[in-house]
Amino acid sequence: MIQKVLDEALEYAKVHLKEGHVADYIPELAKVDPDKIGVSIVTTDGKHYCAGDWDQTFTAQSIAKTISFILAMQTAGAKKVFDHVGVEPTGDPFNSILKLELKDGKPLNPMINAGAIAVVSCIEGDDPIGQFLALARRLCRRDTIEIDQAVYRSEKATGMRNRALAYFMQSEGLIEQNVEEVLDIYFQICSLSVTTQDLATCGMILANDGVDPFTGERLVDNSILRVIKSLMVTCGLYDGSGEFAVRVGLPTKSGVGGGMMSAVEGKMGIGVFSPRLDEKGNSVCSYHMLEYISNHLKLHYFSSHN
Amino acid sequence: MIQKVLDEALEYAKVHLKEGHVADYIPELAKVDPDKIGVSIVTTDGKHYCAGDWDQTFTAQSIAKTISFILAMQTAGAKKVFDHVGVEPTGDPFNSILKLELKDGKPLNPMINAGAIAVVSCIEGDDPIGQFLALARRLCRRDTIEIDQAVYRSEKATGMRNRALAYFMQSEGLIEQNVEEVLDIYFQICSLSVTTQDLATCGMILANDGVDPFTGERLVDNSILRVIKSLMVTCGLYDGSGEFAVRVGLPTKSGVGGGMMSAVEGKMGIGVFSPRLDEKGNSVCSYHMLEYISNHLKLHYFSSHN
Amino acid sequence: MIQKVLDEALEYAKVHLKEGHVADYIPELAKVDPDKIGVSIVTTDGKHYCAGDWDQTFTAQSIAKTISFILAMQTAGAKKVFDHVGVEPTGDPFNSILKLELKDGKPLNPMINAGAIAVVSCIEGDDPIGQFLALARRLCRRDTIEIDQAVYRSEKATGMRNRALAYFMQSEGLIEQNVEEVLDIYFQICSLSVTTQDLATCGMILANDGVDPFTGERLVDNSILRVIKSLMVTCGLYDGSGEFAVRVGLPTKSGVGGGMMSAVEGKMGIGVFSPRLDEKGNSVCSYHMLEYISNHLKLHYFSSHN
Amino acid sequence: MIQKVLDEALEYAKVHLKEGHVADYIPELAKVDPDKIGVSIVTTDGKHYCAGDWDQTFTAQSIAKTISFILAMQTAGAKKVFDHVGVEPTGDPFNSILKLELKDGKPLNPMINAGAIAVVSCIEGDDPIGQFLALARRLCRRDTIEIDQAVYRSEKATGMRNRALAYFMQSEGLIEQNVEEVLDIYFQICSLSVTTQDLATCGMILANDGVDPFTGERLVDNSILRVIKSLMVTCGLYDGSGEFAVRVGLPTKSGVGGGMMSAVEGKMGIGVFSPRLDEKGNSVCSYHMLEYISNHLKLHYFSSHN
Repeated sequence: MIQKVLDEALEYAKVHLKEGHVADYIPELAKVDPDKIGVSIVTTDGKHYCAGDWDQTFTAQSIAKTISFILAMQTAGAKKVFDHVGVEPTGDPFNSILKLELKDGKPLNPMINAGAIAVVSCIEGDDPIGQFLALARRLCRRDTIEIDQAVYRSEKATGMRNRALAYFMQSEGLIEQNVEEVLDIYFQICSLSVTTQDLATCGMILANDGVDPFTGERLVDNSILRVIKSLMVTCGLYDGSGEFAVRVGLPTKSGVGGGMMSAVEGKMGIGVFSPRLDEKGNSVCSYHMLEYISNHLKLHYFSSHN
Repeated sequence: MIQKVLDEALEYAKVHLKEGHVADYIPELAKVDPDKIGVSIVTTDGKHYCAGDWDQTFTAQSIAKTISFILAMQTAGAKKVFDHVGVEPTGDPFNSILKLELKDGKPLNPMINAGAIAVVSCIEGDDPIGQFLALARRLCRRDTIEIDQAVYRSEKATGMRNRALAYFMQSEGLIEQNVEEVLDIYFQICSLSVTTQDLATCGMILANDGVDPFTGERLVDNSILRVIKSLMVTCGLYDGSGEFAVRVGLPTKSGVGGGMMSAVEGKMGIGVFSPRLDEKGNSVCSYHMLEYISNHLKLHYFSSHN
Repeated sequence: MIQKVLDEALEYAKVHLKEGHVADYIPELAKVDPDKIGVSIVTTDGKHYCAGDWDQTFTAQSIAKTISFILAMQTAGAKKVFDHVGVEPTGDPFNSILKLELKDGKPLNPMINAGAIAVVSCIEGDDPIGQFLALARRLCRRDTIEIDQAVYRSEKATGMRNRALAYFMQSEGLIEQNVEEVLDIYFQICSLSVTTQDLATCGMILANDGVDPFTGERLVDNSILRVIKSLMVTCGLYDGSGEFAVRVGLPTKSGVGGGMMSAVEGKMGIGVFSPRLDEKGNSVCSYHMLEYISNHLKLHYFSSHN
Repeated sequence: MIQKVLDEALEYAKVHLKEGHVADYIPELAKVDPDKIGVSIVTTDGKHYCAGDWDQTFTAQSIAKTISFILAMQTAGAKKVFDHVGVEPTGDPFNSILKLELKDGKPLNPMINAGAIAVVSCIEGDDPIGQFLALARRLCRRDTIEIDQAVYRSEKATGMRNRALAYFMQSEGLIEQNVEEVLDIYFQICSLSVTTQDLATCGMILANDGVDPFTGERLVDNSILRVIKSLMVTCGLYDGSGEFAVRVGLPTKSGVGGGMMSAVEGKMGIGVFSPRLDEKGNSVCSYHMLEYISNHLKLHYFSSHN
């Protein structure tokens, strides 16, 4: 059943394969093959399903904001994190600076760029990237996950809007550290190289109350999970989150690398990938695949059959 | 168990009974007794629970936007409605006009004032208020539900910000009818007089896939329910929706009359009421009661125990 | 010399006669012959010059805001007026509502629509329109000046954006009276029917320290003149005021009827007219005529030869 | 007469000496003696007048934007400069980033921080600071004018809001060069160390059609002067420019170092200084001195007696 739906979802989405545009403001991202498309599901009882280019690596980009948020909550605690970022959706694009000026520099939520940078500045410990990679590897259950160095260098060389956001927050006293050091970590985090299999595994563990079902080990505390999954519902697709909640209805985070990660409460994680993006920065085919899967497996949180 | 939690929730919230301020921009609203507090639960298997001033009437205000949205979808269809309003959260206050100017006059969602007025302008039929009352009575299962005429006249006499919103949308071509006629309907809808029992019943039917369990009759189609419940998640408490999603995690709509209505998928509806509001226009004690109930009955949609 | 420059200015501007668009948001305005073009100068020593359709009537629109501002200052005093409006340029379009929300409802200056409506609400006396017409007739030295009733009715029927601005200000407590009554006066004021000769005469009296040189009578006090002429410099052409100050350098007020009125300190008044507007709402050919006249008669306030 | 008015203006302004606050966001600026107050006038026929701490040095800050604008126009030409900056007043604070996002990254005028940084990025030549100092020395007629190295280093270390503005413009393609290099020049320019005598001399040359009356040498072309003096009228005091135009009526530029420079067309330059600033970033006592001088010497450009 699940495998059949995945295969159909891939075919259904492929009709839209040429729609949208690959993110080009990070030069290295524009080198990806735009026709790739893949999907993976991992269930909480340990089964795997996949279709298409499920093992193609790509950079997680904003999807990694979920992992860095968890790391910040684990190392710095909720109070420090929420002193630096809110939990409200914005209605503005992911790289907007408007609300920062109107709200005294505090970003509205951790899923937009400004908020994610503020969250990264909260992470405590001697080796933030080492800690981040360790957590990512456990959540994705793959020890070979790495930062894509070419994308990282490309983002670092060109991420001027993110610099604007970070310096603005520093001018308001929200970021205390050296901005370039914070951004260096942020750019590495965005450049986490993953497959849809990795994302499905991570989503599954979030859906499984933070426990790795293969080892029984708790990786994320429930109080943190509640926050991150709620944020994935209200803010996970930037200023397209509301429509996604209606049409798909799964806690999901998208990234401009073309991926999306969903956590289906108690049931499964889903990873999807296709590089071309709509005008809000969300992958066109990833969106269509998730909509198809949600509808045909009755996964919408307000599905009448769940 | 449920009754005990309701009693405790009432006591827990009462500590905050004097916090916040009764809405005073509608003079008639300021006449309410600010110390009233009540709560009701109706389950999908037909049980009733209540505590405090559960039978006190108050005006639904923005909560009624859920019913008028359903009516517009039922009479005019989804295409017409979504030509007039979006489904994205805003991050701005409920009466803000900023986004209207920046987004060419189309309100971001039906839960803010501008969006609700646009939705009301979509309702088709010869007697919008008659149709609205009929639907409200069936959803609340009480034939004696009426418009509070004193509040309606007070809102009509003083609702200048809503006039500004409506004329702005008309100047952008979004509202075609006579603005005062649209507002006359809108002000009546906001003045729907309800009890927490009414809200709990309505929320229960939304949670029960739109079917009245006492009669077996379907009142709302699933495709509409999916939209309205998703909107209650992402936009139900104005620019406090994100924090509510984290802390309480129930599809809920608030009103400046002091009430809130929650739909707990497949399980129950909850109605709460207390007049004093926080700075975002949400009832202080209603919020606390729902948080207590959600936590102690494990109702959060990302509760690890549901 | 002056006559020759006027004739040349007309020819110079006519090259652009088909550029831009007649204001169409007031249906009656769209009925004007778009190819009309005229110019008049009246000097402080009583000489008249004109060219083209100098005797064509058109509605003053925003140009009349200068006269209603003077009337409000004369009847209500500076304190009351500046409690209702600021004197700062905005950088936003003439009908913008953004700054109203960001600045607690107080319009930035009397030359944008919101500010002019607030100013009209300040006028004291039993017959605001009678007083306005009396002042306009003396400033233009023509007793037969009237309100264009067809344009007035058209504006009253369609001016929804102005209603939005007015109700917004009322919701913030800035306008105390009945909004429709204030707007009724505002729409009449905007519909003042004038010729370029009228505007040149009015501009000349402003330039002559408020004294009618033909009668020696003082019509406007110097303290009011200083304000209105300063506002014509900083805010007279909406969000095109800065560029106009650089290129033309004359205290000037434009109107969407296609006219402009300039006051050349101590020397003369200039009236120009042509209906087609640029995207900021300023007449294309009126702008070109004033630029030509200013350059060739060395009238720019920072001309090196004055 | 002039000397008497200067002495009176100083006494008149001193009443307000303790009002406002010294700029503290540049730590080095906060070290200035806040009770200093001085004024100088230099006339186009070569006379000097002064009072108070006229020979106290302070940093020009935004006043230097006039000189760097002239340098950019002289080295890069008007087309390049106006491809990077507009000439419209904004109604927003000097360090606002809102309009940048709403206007696709192009700053509204060269007198706000974003615009001045964009202008600095236009300067052509191998040694921008050398060229700037050379021009400043000739306009102020003092060869010993220097950059205040302590203030420059302090601004460079703390100017995060300016970094945010610059990186935002770079992300929109408006600034092509290395942002830190552009800012390094900008911070040095702001740190120009001057006296009121220097500012009065510079203002006098601007008022004298760009010609140094002592040598007969033309330093600034008339076409550039027209722009810069018009900008000083419409945008010279940030979002306080409109009120200053009404009350004082002189082309003037202020700086957060506490100084102001006025150019009285054909007559004189005025330099004033006092460190405490109002909430818009303009010196309280400098404002009062200029108002007194303008009123008593009848210098307002709409004074009835000039």
